[in-house]
Amino acid sequence: MKTTKKIVLNENDMPREWYNIVADMHTKPMPPLHPVTKQPLAPADLEPIFAKELIKQEVSSERWIEIPEEVRDLYRIYRPTPLVRASGLEKALDTPAKIYFKNESVSPVGSHKLNSAIPQAYYNKIEGITSITTETGAGQWGSAMSVACQHFGINLQVFMVKISYEQKPYRKSVMNTYGANVIASPSNLTEVGRRMQQQFPGTNGSLGMAISEAMELAMKDEKTKYTLGSVLNHVTLHQTIIGLEAEKQMEIAGDYPDVVIGCFGGGSNFSGIAFPFLRHKLTEGKDIRLIAVEPASCPKLTRGKFLYDYGDTEGFTPLLPMYTLGHNFEPAEIHAGGLRYHGAGTLVSQLRKDGLIEAEAIKQNETFEAGVLFARAEGIVPAPESTHAIAMTIREALKAKEEGKERVILFNLSGHGLIDMAAYDKYLSGSLSNYEVSDAEIEKSLAGLK
Amino acid sequence: MKTTKKIVLNENDMPREWYNIVADMHTKPMPPLHPVTKQPLAPADLEPIFAKELIKQEVSSERWIEIPEEVRDLYRIYRPTPLVRASGLEKALDTPAKIYFKNESVSPVGSHKLNSAIPQAYYNKIEGITSITTETGAGQWGSAMSVACQHFGINLQVFMVKISYEQKPYRKSVMNTYGANVIASPSNLTEVGRRMQQQFPGTNGSLGMAISEAMELAMKDEKTKYTLGSVLNHVTLHQTIIGLEAEKQMEIAGDYPDVVIGCFGGGSNFSGIAFPFLRHKLTEGKDIRLIAVEPASCPKLTRGKFLYDYGDTEGFTPLLPMYTLGHNFEPAEIHAGGLRYHGAGTLVSQLRKDGLIEAEAIKQNETFEAGVLFARAEGIVPAPESTHAIAMTIREALKAKEEGKERVILFNLSGHGLIDMAAYDKYLSGSLSNYEVSDAEIEKSLAGLK
Repeated sequence: MKTTKKIVLNENDMPREWYNIVADMHTKPMPPLHPVTKQPLAPADLEPIFAKELIKQEVSSERWIEIPEEVRDLYRIYRPTPLVRASGLEKALDTPAKIYFKNESVSPVGSHKLNSAIPQAYYNKIEGITSITTETGAGQWGSAMSVACQHFGINLQVFMVKISYEQKPYRKSVMNTYGANVIASPSNLTEVGRRMQQQFPGTNGSLGMAISEAMELAMKDEKTKYTLGSVLNHVTLHQTIIGLEAEKQMEIAGDYPDVVIGCFGGGSNFSGIAFPFLRHKLTEGKDIRLIAVEPASCPKLTRGKFLYDYGDTEGFTPLLPMYTLGHNFEPAEIHAGGLRYHGAGTLVSQLRKDGLIEAEAIKQNETFEAGVLFARAEGIVPAPESTHAIAMTIREALKAKEEGKERVILFNLSGHGLIDMAAYDKYLSGSLSNYEVSDAEIEKSLAGLK
Repeated sequence: MKTTKKIVLNENDMPREWYNIVADMHTKPMPPLHPVTKQPLAPADLEPIFAKELIKQEVSSERWIEIPEEVRDLYRIYRPTPLVRASGLEKALDTPAKIYFKNESVSPVGSHKLNSAIPQAYYNKIEGITSITTETGAGQWGSAMSVACQHFGINLQVFMVKISYEQKPYRKSVMNTYGANVIASPSNLTEVGRRMQQQFPGTNGSLGMAISEAMELAMKDEKTKYTLGSVLNHVTLHQTIIGLEAEKQMEIAGDYPDVVIGCFGGGSNFSGIAFPFLRHKLTEGKDIRLIAVEPASCPKLTRGKFLYDYGDTEGFTPLLPMYTLGHNFEPAEIHAGGLRYHGAGTLVSQLRKDGLIEAEAIKQNETFEAGVLFARAEGIVPAPESTHAIAMTIREALKAKEEGKERVILFNLSGHGLIDMAAYDKYLSGSLSNYEVSDAEIEKSLAGLK
């Protein structure tokens, strides 16, 4: 009898609530501070920027938060996603480890980002918002918001980091096809954009700048709000649907993970897969490891500092308690655009500080080597971001082999790479950068922050 | 109570046999002829080119042919694929029609082509073949063969039509990532390639030329065989898994299609979705329409002639009885590369001749208009090829609305378009060609054929 390759849930088995880990955290996260007064933020301070219901979720300590019927409806376009036994990879590694992955790449935009884009657009819609602004780096979040806003009849303006806008024209085409308006950032549309262009002539742009621009437009207009695709508590909340489904699926498979692995940018896909499992560690002392994997070129969790920092370049966002490389940190141009962000979300940062999750930084060549091995073994070309999780999975599987131990590994395949093939080209031709940021750079970027 | 969005089958419900429509055809297809002697072909004549088991399938009249366990195993990477209720599209069209689509875009290479690539690589493997040659236009078939050959440890050389090789570098990267060797065609590797370059200096290449090159290498070496991704009987046989799954899923949905629609290049995805339903028309007189949709720039089924023609430019292939525009026909450069082929497969051609299936030709702008509407309504950017099926679906849905009739429409979403966004760019900027081939061109291309 063959082992099942994919564990597939019915639509009716899709979770009806998201899981809020704040309810179970032993040390509660420190409060965000007002960017100007530096005093703890009142929820109302966020109302010029975010939909009210999203603010409520941002500060909630309820354990379970209901997923609205309209959101579940749209989730059904691609959810529940399959849990897949990576039997091809196991064979290629000749490991006694059992490897599973949650396949979020089956989403029509190719990544997990729709999980939060849909509820964010929905809550804005029911609060009467007609326009949304957001930013995007590699383009995954912008594509997801484009689908969601199109569905709910909301105008969307996406500030796309200039270098990605130029180097990845097809990501822009995807957003245009879904009906969104895409602007290269920094732009002339905003004061901050104009200032950035004067201050840094010929700049490539950055996520931090794009966030500042998108926020400026939202702050200026009552019917316009802003959305963010990672870092914040409500985003990680929405993403827990990944891990909640995976839990049910692992139960059907008759296994329980010893280790859960996700790549790490701001925390959205890592938290999504990890928090529902971490819950049992927090509440029942379950012996399980959670590993966040970041690029060696942007290693906030492993080499950054835990302190209050801004989420954007201009300092429009609240000050958040986070592991950070400094909000002026300019990550090297690696291909995992979704991992090029200076800070980690508040929840992950606190959990890391408390020793409840692990973190590893991996250089680009090892991640692409893992990506190619995975593509050949499992038939799916992974997104450059996801190759970080795969590289870590391979390390763990080889360790299990060395130790002669059966170990159950679960990782999140956050997306596919079919739209990012330039990266694979470079890897296969041996011209990929293997950059690791120096201590001096990190120190310089963190100087002046406390 | 919400209607289910997706009908998902378990792996165990995946069909165990392919359906061979030859068994049920009222008029059996005419035999292929030897390219040189012009006498009916003996199966053994194909042995220098194809694996023996595939030849057996090519000439079989058995109704059901077992799917080998190893093939089913690999199918499980992405199969069974979902059947989706296009509720968003229905709403956008305000139609009383119920629209369903079979979502073959969830395959890791983004299209239905793996359905035949896997068995073709498998049968070659068990017959001791170590190298395979093939051709690819848009790159879908080449990508699928790359995955399959990698799995079975077979070397693969893909002759890629030169203009696609240059215009779609990322398709090449996908094949390279899966471990295949990709050559721009016409190349210097083969006699026919060198001759073509002399004869047509600066040529863009064509599928016909690429097939000739791939076949030449296979004919020269005993351990090397050739594979084709469409047109032939054994390819359409493998693709019937699409329709067989869809039949089970429609039953679960409690509906039966009045009309089944697929885009049409050589016949692989159309036959795949249509033949299992056509079976009930042939055997029980079931009232059901099957519509093949081709581009107005390459309309063999609607404006070609039914006669014996070659499948390639050089005349290496057997002469097949087919609707054709002539094997020297050079289709205009539309974006649906998979539909740019001069001839229709033998089985579809005979069924069309007997009035058992319908055909329509649609111009490029209407198809992309349909594609954008679908992307916005259903969240999935369709492949340029698949937009032809969607355009026809919309015509039928609007007709149902005009007539005030509830009608059940099923179409095949053969692939997604995330890797073909240049086409959408052109459409959105209004610079897409809306070319329709002239009668004079078709006459000229058919001159000399009988």
